[in-house]
Parts: sequence; structure tokens; C-alpha cells
Amino acid sequence: MSVWVGSRLLRFLSSSRYFSLSTLKQGHRSMATGASNVTYLGQEAAQQFDNALFYDYEYSIDQLMEIAGLCCAQALAKVYPKKPSKVLIVCGPGNNGGDGLAAARHLLSFGYNVNIFYPKRTNKPIYNILVTQCTKLSIPFLTELPSPEDINAQYSILLDAIFGFSFKGSVRSPFDHVLSVLQKCQVPICSVDVPSGWDVEKGDVTGSGLNPDVLISLTCPKICARYFTGRHFLGLRVVPPELAQRFNVKLPSYPGTDQITEILP
Amino acid sequence: MSVWVGSRLLRFLSSSRYFSLSTLKQGHRSMATGASNVTYLGQEAAQQFDNALFYDYEYSIDQLMEIAGLCCAQALAKVYPKKPSKVLIVCGPGNNGGDGLAAARHLLSFGYNVNIFYPKRTNKPIYNILVTQCTKLSIPFLTELPSPEDINAQYSILLDAIFGFSFKGSVRSPFDHVLSVLQKCQVPICSVDVPSGWDVEKGDVTGSGLNPDVLISLTCPKICARYFTGRHFLGLRVVPPELAQRFNVKLPSYPGTDQITEILP
Repeated sequence: MSVWVGSRLLRFLSSSRYFSLSTLKQGHRSMATGASNVTYLGQEAAQQFDNALFYDYEYSIDQLMEIAGLCCAQALAKVYPKKPSKVLIVCGPGNNGGDGLAAARHLLSFGYNVNIFYPKRTNKPIYNILVTQCTKLSIPFLTELPSPEDINAQYSILLDAIFGFSFKGSVRSPFDHVLSVLQKCQVPICSVDVPSGWDVEKGDVTGSGLNPDVLISLTCPKICARYFTGRHFLGLRVVPPELAQRFNVKLPSYPGTDQITEILP
Repeated sequence: MSVWVGSRLLRFLSSSRYFSLSTLKQGHRSMATGASNVTYLGQEAAQQFDNALFYDYEYSIDQLMEIAGLCCAQALAKVYPKKPSKVLIVCGPGNNGGDGLAAARHLLSFGYNVNIFYPKRTNKPIYNILVTQCTKLSIPFLTELPSPEDINAQYSILLDAIFGFSFKGSVRSPFDHVLSVLQKCQVPICSVDVPSGWDVEKGDVTGSGLNPDVLISLTCPKICARYFTGRHFLGLRVVPPELAQRFNVKLPSYPGTDQITEILP
């Protein structure tokens, strides 16, 4: 979830049908997954979609991140329910990292043993309170990323909350090192929204991306998820029907009152 | 959830063991519910507990209200899963009302048809965004409360989000009228945290309170819940173990990754 705060122009554009009729057609594709049609958003469309939630629907970052963290924790727990399991959450500097921080607290409440590696902190209110909450809950923040051998020995699950759909270009320090370490681990990886290091539309084109076992897409899957072959969940059940219609987005239904739904291959 | 913003003294007091060792002992009682012990908080203790979440753990009102709304919606859906069901949510001016506004959106996402009556609006950011979100989702806000006959004819469930644990004294206009109308309805009522009109510790002492079928306690049940005989759920799975220990609070466990748990008689 990224907020583009620089311009009000977007507000006008995204509240019109402009994007859905022209730009968006190039930015997303629909495909069938079993009986359902699911739309995969391109990077630009995902940013516009996200901005509509923030500007048109006035969702606060606190609201969305709290539910996003819950969804990530519930998807991880669905695939890896065995306890006690030790989870290492690696957080990037943006909203994907914030989702990971919120997930840490929910995972702790589910009974998981959680550690966080969050090497590049963002000094904004929501990130500060999420860090405070984790700290007060005695969730350890690692000062250094352990070696692949130590991660394999100490952890049973990795939650990759490094980069989301705003990621572009090459992976910079310290995350080039982080990804190279995580690539060498045998521990199963759950990625938040986009597998870190992947091009949001083309997938792992550089070969420096992670190879997750589980992907938790938020609001809508991104196009790169078409190249993903593990268990795929969708979370953030907050998409207004009008917004889905405006962006010509088709999403799977959520069962009952669940906050996540699995997208079958 | 109420925030007492007037003094920093509380921060010191609630971070010490003062309340748990003296004041709190008069303010809450423990009782067994089946195999488990559950603590019921008195009004003062509930306020201190809530304040500790806000000040010590720095939870934002957006975070807590979003999850509280989800819990209320999930509890209602668990007891009344039949759809299409039309739910009338009656919101008070405080945090209880905010929980109801957040619940409206979650109920809509679960497939319920929702109407809101929110006669006394609070002009604070979280309330404004919750109203905006409901409005943009085309959830109707009623300008007048229908008669008991019309409520019986049009609605199948009432969500009482009028007064919470901060309620004291007598019910003032327009809520005296609201309660007298709702008392005359045959539609089942789900109350958020405290049945509206009840004394938080002594129950429905004036006889002007509601008689709900379902109670959704948030964080910890309040003492009045001991006089409640319907289905009782607990939500807001955010209580840190340290805080529970500090307040000498015993809570039931939550199953799996659920955000609500039922407290059996």
C-alpha cells in the first residue's frame, strides 16, 4: 500500500472513469483460476487502485495495515499451523514492511514465536507505533540478519515483508545482501503481496528474487503472481464493489467471514 | 474504548502496579465460566485498562476500532448466519458507536444488507472517515429511527452500538427515545461491549436498558455481563500478556486464528 501524496490530480483522475477505460486496459489482465475469474493488476494500476482506497474511500493507513497484517498472519497460520513454530519476519522500509510489523503482533497472539529483522526503519507515526507495540510485547528485533545456516537451524518459517507492488529497478543495500542470504535458506517463505526482488509484472527476471512457498496478495493479485506456483491467498477484504467495477477487477469471493481466501491454480 | 486525554498522571499510575494492587481489587471480580476463569472488569478498571492500550502500547484508535468492528460483525454473523438478513446498526456518539460504524462495513462485506442510525455524530477524524467509508459504500444512514412496528417488519437483527463501558448516569435525549423504541422491538439485539442503558457494573438497574440476545465484550467482559444470559462473545484479541498480568486479568483463549471466542455460561 503506497500513498502518493504529491498531487491532487490523481484524485480527480481516479474518481473519473479515465483509468478504467484507457490506461488500465494495458495494466491488468484477467484469467480464470478454476471456476473463478481473477484480475491481476499491473504496477501502475495497483498504485491507482491503492490510491483510490486512500483518497476516495479515505481508508487510513492504520486501518488497512492492521487488517493486512491480520491477513498475512492468518494465511501463514493456515499453511503452517504446527506450533511452536519460530517465524522470522523480514521487513522492508515501506508499507510492505509495515504489514509485516502488524503481522508480527497477530502471529504472537496466535501462539507463534516471532523475531523481526527490520534494518531500515521509516520514521512515520504508523511505523513507530507498530515498532512500539512489538517492542512492548517483547518481540525481539534482530540487529543483524543471521547466516543461512543459523536461519535454517533456528527458524521454521520466513515472512518476507520486504518489497511490495511499489518496487522498481534493482535491489539496493542492505536488501541485496538480505535477499542473497534468504535465497540460500531452506526454510519455507511466505511473501506479502509480491515476492521480494520480483518485477511486479514480469516476475523474477533478474534471478535475485525470492522463491516463496506461499504468496499473500493484498486487495488484488499483481501480474507477477501468474508466475507463482505455490499456495496463493488473497487478503484485505476491503475492495468496494464500485471500485472493483471502476477498475474492471474480478476477485474471488471470500468464504463466510474469513479475511483471506485461497486462489486455486 | 475511551481515551482519557486530560492527564499524564494516569500514564505513570497505569505503568506502575498501583491499580492492580489496590484500586483494581475493588473494581473487578473473577468467576469461573465452565472450565475457564474469566475476569469481569469494573468501570474504572476498564477505563484504566483501555488507557493502557492507548498510552502504554500506543494502539491507535483506528487500529482498535477496525478490529473491534470486525469482531462485532463476526460474532453477529456467527449467531445469525442466514442471508439475506437486514441489520439495523444504532450508533451512539462515542467509541461504541465507532465500533458499530466499522462493523457496518465488515457486515456489508459478509453479504448483509445494512442500515445505520447515527443521530449524534462526533466530529473527530476516525468517525468522519468511518462515515465516509459507509457513505461511499452506499450504506444508508437513516435520518429518523423507524417505529417498533417498522423495525420488526424491515429488519432481522439490531446491532446496539450506543453506549459502552464509559456510560454513566441516566440516558439523555435522543437516546432515551431510541432505547424506548428498541425495547419495544421483537428483533434480536446484539450489543457491543455493554447492553445500552445498563449500569456497567450493576446491570439494568433502571429498567430502561436493552435486553440483548448476544453480547460482544471487547478486550475483557465488564461486570454487568454477569447478569447477561444470552450468547456471550469476547473480541479484540489484542490484550498483551503483561497487561493482563498487571491488571490480574484472566481471559479465555481464542481458538486458532479466530478474532472472537465464545464465553460459555
